[in-house]
Amino acid sequence: MLGRLYDGQDCSAAKALELIGERWSLLILRDAMFRGLVRFSQFQNSLGVAPNILAKRLDRFVASGIMERTANGEYLLTVMGLETKAVVVALTLWGDRWLHQGPIDFVDRESGDPLDLIFSGGGSRVPLSEVAAKRRA
Amino acid sequence: MLGRLYDGQDCSAAKALELIGERWSLLILRDAMFRGLVRFSQFQNSLGVAPNILAKRLDRFVASGIMERTANGEYLLTVMGLETKAVVVALTLWGDRWLHQGPIDFVDRESGDPLDLIFSGGGSRVPLSEVAAKRRA
Repeated sequence: MLGRLYDGQDCSAAKALELIGERWSLLILRDAMFRGLVRFSQFQNSLGVAPNILAKRLDRFVASGIMERTANGEYLLTVMGLETKAVVVALTLWGDRWLHQGPIDFVDRESGDPLDLIFSGGGSRVPLSEVAAKRRA
Repeated sequence: MLGRLYDGQDCSAAKALELIGERWSLLILRDAMFRGLVRFSQFQNSLGVAPNILAKRLDRFVASGIMERTANGEYLLTVMGLETKAVVVALTLWGDRWLHQGPIDFVDRESGDPLDLIFSGGGSRVPLSEVAAKRRA
């Protein structure tokens, strides 16, 4: 159990946090992916974050490939950026359950059916308690 | 699209970040849930974090119900704490895919089968692009 699962902080969760774990980063991504915000002023209005911080976060997203900046100054999520969706949703669902029921449901865009974020193995749902980490051979 | 999906920062993702989005917090939770660490010294050895920061994070986890401190000084995850698992795994999988292939697979504890974290609606997998946020009526 106490074997060295991770090489120091050379693990992917730590590396991911370096890029998207700074204050405001995940809320910017949330607004981009779920509210369709694309302009600096839109993010600023939505978040009330200091402009210098917002500029730093957006620049970093562009430099790391999470966003692209278009010729007319819009910030668009790349596929890399869109794929942070599970992180944002997992945080929101946890907050909904344990802190405060927020005003948002996650649904299938077409059908409007409610969605769940689940662990799946061989086609069936696996309970949280059975999800383990294993060092790759 | 630009309707006010969130009441200021009164959304669950923001509230969750206040509790588990501070520097080191998610790595402490990772070590607790996947490496079975329970003691202050174990977390410190694993993370190399300054003791005053680690103490602050653990105290906050206990105060907010994410961990319990036992009579002999061990820090144990509560159900609330265990349920941050999807956040930790989502971060790790994203980092694996986009930043650096880490050394860890997530598997079914019993069978050892690899697991996936997916959006599910009506029993079938829903692609990321179809996952939308909808204000509750």
